[in-house]
Amino acid sequence: MTPGPGNTITDVAGVSVGHRTLSEGDFRTGFTAILPHPGNLFREKLVAAVEVINGFGKSAGLVQVEELGTLETPILLTNTFGVGTGVNTLIRRAISENPEIGRSTGTVNPVVMECNDGYLNDIQAMALSEADAEAALAAASTAFGQGSVGAGTGMSAFGFKGGIGSASRVFALAGRSFTLGALVLANFGRPGDLVLPDGRRPHPKAAVQTEERGSVIIVLATDVPLESRQLKRIAKRAGAGLARLGAYYGNGSGDIALAFSTAHRLAHFEESDFIARDILREDKIDSLFQAAAETTQEAVLNAMIASPAMRGRGRSRRPSLGDWLQS
Amino acid sequence: MTPGPGNTITDVAGVSVGHRTLSEGDFRTGFTAILPHPGNLFREKLVAAVEVINGFGKSAGLVQVEELGTLETPILLTNTFGVGTGVNTLIRRAISENPEIGRSTGTVNPVVMECNDGYLNDIQAMALSEADAEAALAAASTAFGQGSVGAGTGMSAFGFKGGIGSASRVFALAGRSFTLGALVLANFGRPGDLVLPDGRRPHPKAAVQTEERGSVIIVLATDVPLESRQLKRIAKRAGAGLARLGAYYGNGSGDIALAFSTAHRLAHFEESDFIARDILREDKIDSLFQAAAETTQEAVLNAMIASPAMRGRGRSRRPSLGDWLQS
Amino acid sequence: MTPGPGNTITDVAGVSVGHRTLSEGDFRTGFTAILPHPGNLFREKLVAAVEVINGFGKSAGLVQVEELGTLETPILLTNTFGVGTGVNTLIRRAISENPEIGRSTGTVNPVVMECNDGYLNDIQAMALSEADAEAALAAASTAFGQGSVGAGTGMSAFGFKGGIGSASRVFALAGRSFTLGALVLANFGRPGDLVLPDGRRPHPKAAVQTEERGSVIIVLATDVPLESRQLKRIAKRAGAGLARLGAYYGNGSGDIALAFSTAHRLAHFEESDFIARDILREDKIDSLFQAAAETTQEAVLNAMIASPAMRGRGRSRRPSLGDWLQS
Amino acid sequence: MTPGPGNTITDVAGVSVGHRTLSEGDFRTGFTAILPHPGNLFREKLVAAVEVINGFGKSAGLVQVEELGTLETPILLTNTFGVGTGVNTLIRRAISENPEIGRSTGTVNPVVMECNDGYLNDIQAMALSEADAEAALAAASTAFGQGSVGAGTGMSAFGFKGGIGSASRVFALAGRSFTLGALVLANFGRPGDLVLPDGRRPHPKAAVQTEERGSVIIVLATDVPLESRQLKRIAKRAGAGLARLGAYYGNGSGDIALAFSTAHRLAHFEESDFIARDILREDKIDSLFQAAAETTQEAVLNAMIASPAMRGRGRSRRPSLGDWLQS
Repeated sequence: MTPGPGNTITDVAGVSVGHRTLSEGDFRTGFTAILPHPGNLFREKLVAAVEVINGFGKSAGLVQVEELGTLETPILLTNTFGVGTGVNTLIRRAISENPEIGRSTGTVNPVVMECNDGYLNDIQAMALSEADAEAALAAASTAFGQGSVGAGTGMSAFGFKGGIGSASRVFALAGRSFTLGALVLANFGRPGDLVLPDGRRPHPKAAVQTEERGSVIIVLATDVPLESRQLKRIAKRAGAGLARLGAYYGNGSGDIALAFSTAHRLAHFEESDFIARDILREDKIDSLFQAAAETTQEAVLNAMIASPAMRGRGRSRRPSLGDWLQS
Repeated sequence: MTPGPGNTITDVAGVSVGHRTLSEGDFRTGFTAILPHPGNLFREKLVAAVEVINGFGKSAGLVQVEELGTLETPILLTNTFGVGTGVNTLIRRAISENPEIGRSTGTVNPVVMECNDGYLNDIQAMALSEADAEAALAAASTAFGQGSVGAGTGMSAFGFKGGIGSASRVFALAGRSFTLGALVLANFGRPGDLVLPDGRRPHPKAAVQTEERGSVIIVLATDVPLESRQLKRIAKRAGAGLARLGAYYGNGSGDIALAFSTAHRLAHFEESDFIARDILREDKIDSLFQAAAETTQEAVLNAMIASPAMRGRGRSRRPSLGDWLQS
Repeated sequence: MTPGPGNTITDVAGVSVGHRTLSEGDFRTGFTAILPHPGNLFREKLVAAVEVINGFGKSAGLVQVEELGTLETPILLTNTFGVGTGVNTLIRRAISENPEIGRSTGTVNPVVMECNDGYLNDIQAMALSEADAEAALAAASTAFGQGSVGAGTGMSAFGFKGGIGSASRVFALAGRSFTLGALVLANFGRPGDLVLPDGRRPHPKAAVQTEERGSVIIVLATDVPLESRQLKRIAKRAGAGLARLGAYYGNGSGDIALAFSTAHRLAHFEESDFIARDILREDKIDSLFQAAAETTQEAVLNAMIASPAMRGRGRSRRPSLGDWLQS
Repeated sequence: MTPGPGNTITDVAGVSVGHRTLSEGDFRTGFTAILPHPGNLFREKLVAAVEVINGFGKSAGLVQVEELGTLETPILLTNTFGVGTGVNTLIRRAISENPEIGRSTGTVNPVVMECNDGYLNDIQAMALSEADAEAALAAASTAFGQGSVGAGTGMSAFGFKGGIGSASRVFALAGRSFTLGALVLANFGRPGDLVLPDGRRPHPKAAVQTEERGSVIIVLATDVPLESRQLKRIAKRAGAGLARLGAYYGNGSGDIALAFSTAHRLAHFEESDFIARDILREDKIDSLFQAAAETTQEAVLNAMIASPAMRGRGRSRRPSLGDWLQS
């Protein structure tokens, strides 16, 4: 399998990503927004699914994705204590675009996912505002930064600097080319556990952390037409990608994967009782399983390599895997 | 089975409930706080579990309860668009009581559950503040109101006025008396579907709602020592109580039950590697199943009977089941 | 909602049911076969889902239905110790019809569901043979008996005689008429807990059983095009039907619902990578929820009413609900 | 972490394993029995849990383990079409040891897990008898063979010969030494996907299989006192061990892990309503997560290395990883 043209999640047509980075004083945090398509997601929902690999996490909106198999807002990534603010932002945005929400139609299910950046960031300050979340949403583009940007600003992985990473794979189905892309917020892994694809085991000098208190969020996008049950199976394979890096989903790590398909848009105000959809034949799903595992593994490494060494709150610091590789 | 002395959830020793009601202009909403014990919940967690009966809902904190089987904050109930504010309030409260959160220890998992009160309440205004949530927490007491108070202020059920209701049952195990109590936020059920225990079917006049867009939250407390797997089984039986009222967990109804046991407190800063606990023998669990179903059913009726007819946002109004019973 | 022409599961076109009854000496048991369509199910699978309401049960084949959302054999119902023999029968039948199984293609997933008829039947004897299971399959017809026949021969419910029951509902979608049918194997419920739709509470005289050791299997069929996630939601509403009868899914009761749709047949040897399917719009699903609850409730009552009083193994006996109603 | 004295699952005190191998003509199959403790498991159950990593499988008994969190029979491993016979064997054995089953007490939940050995074995013949299963149970010992023995006789992995493998780890808790052991039935993995710990990628010559139709069963035993929720978390980490080998839980692979703890025996005829148990503090569970991943990974390799090249049904053959390593 080969990567897409950009080797990022935005190789899936319609997907865009934006960041808002807060990096001053003791703050090393931010928001990252993933827009699954450029339209009004509440009116045109996407098929989606979530897999909780390890549920030591505080993400919002997952219960409804599990029940209904649909996504109806952009996805915000942020620090653990920014979830409430992210939720409020997505609600206000949805109401603004759809004044009938909470009036003549139902409410809206905001999806906000998180990791704990409290090692490098003053997370107690709850410094992120709704304006920050809006800025990330407004910045969405097919070109986006990786490493210590947006929600990834203050994250750590395997004792190194973590952050935002992405990767993609293209493969053929029914004679056409399809894409699966991953974006990860990498903040997991015990120092010393990391295994590179070539078998090397990078260990940061002077890592003090001994138990895992991180998390990792994986967002998978594809243009293959799928039902939510299939997307859940695909999301589960993100866990295989994490394991290949040496992780075993530590107790304190909230490891959560969310997958969506851009192939069909489901109308909120649908007039037909039945909806015609294409669904992937089940025994062709292995390509997507493999792509989910590979892109997750690679996206984490990309996040780490793209992140320079950082000093953060107090005397905290994280070395860079990129520096280790060049040393 | 007989009810406890107060026939409410606070018959379970240590549990208290507080409300903050916002009922002015187009606002019919509020917060209800359930304090599972009077101490510091982050430092002394309780065994808990959640059962998603129908996941068309936006509650926060359920993923971690499912994974770890513990509860580490009070439970806030509110309207669907108050969840973010409730989350922020519980985080700030936990940090205030435990300055090591997000510093030398991990973060905290706030539990906030919700129903959509948009029919009677101007839910778009997002009128509730963190001060409102704090007021509900501060008001916690073993004596608390039912009906159109707190989070129940603007709720509807079966075309009638809904709201907060509670009930309890006492039963014997190992020669001692134990209690299970339920508190519900009742906002579900199609007009005409309600069935009273005597078989009567109250139908509100002029109900305009035809499909179900509500939800119901059920919180179950007990002093029986249980593991989380058992609490999940018990929470599931809340669904039996709802069904006896004529509900079938409609598509648009977020029906969620959370159960906790006050029997053991699990220390956050535990020093022992092993914890000695009593666990109920599994084949004695039917008493708790029966109590969960009965108290859920009765708590919904209590919520409805305690709620007078209400006029709300715009020209909205809901009649009272109490009036129907007396007519 | 009104029942279909026969008020049974075979009102769903293509579904047939057959029994093999063993009622002699101390044996009160049998097999019931449900054929979801008249063709080769392995080659033309149906979309399906399973909901484990209470998992104190020994049914076979559910794991794969949950993962893949498909059904590829007829469904056999029998006593708890007949599952292994039922499994072997379905495997041999599938190999006979599809010689490539286990050779050039994969294996097959037999679905056998069960209740414990050990009160009336000598279940220890494991008296049922593969020939008995084959006889049930061979007897499949749109006309089939209810009550103490097939797998229902030795079952009990609420202290009365239980057994096989069925019911159906028709409803309109997209201007056409659709059907949902239920078939239950009713063997659950504590004496005294039964509530009739009119509020009466039939109590058998001299019931000795105090705790619940039974089970209930619910099979739901529909011709509405659905995905497996939706079928799982529908299967869950069978639990609402049980609860309306007074049940609360007792600890010792294996309460399991399986639902399938006959609308699309999924080819085992599919040539296309994508399959065009119609899927019900989610907010139209309430008709199926209501039908699932209603038919489950009614099918259990039909099972009980159709069953005369019975004497079984040793001095065991069960009165008839039909007799109670006429007394 | 270091292996236990035998580096097998029987390093956990009380656990024994027995095989019955059928290797003649076109038959390459058998039964493997795991006895979790030497006593009467129905009367003294163990805490257990199951994790379905990928549910394309036909194992029996998992639903009840999931619901009740207990194991009450030995575990049989066999080929996919031997499950029914294994179920019948375990039922008869349990009745023989406990004549009250199905009479004055409930039934019994036999656990039989499987992989498809149809490439090397004539699985259609259903050649295994109850006597074969009994022979495996009777052969149980702390010393047992690995590779192409028992249920592992005809299994394949990554295009090489698979089979039965085992490994163990010891670690300290509360100042004492504890053990976790794994036994796998390895029959999964596409040719070319295998990655050795040192990064090498062994590829069998002339492997014809292109898609995955195998499965892998992982049984984990430990003497650490745990609740079933914790055992389920531990079982999930077996998936990390598989992923480190290069697997991504292919569509057609039934990957299932079952874990049990020998620390407490739960009496079937318990007299007390409450049971005193020790439970591991949750944030000490990482040792078991790590041990589960490591032993699963190593047990698969041990299975492959212990298996010589084999010729089977028709012209089928599998090379040996051991030969590859020595070449």
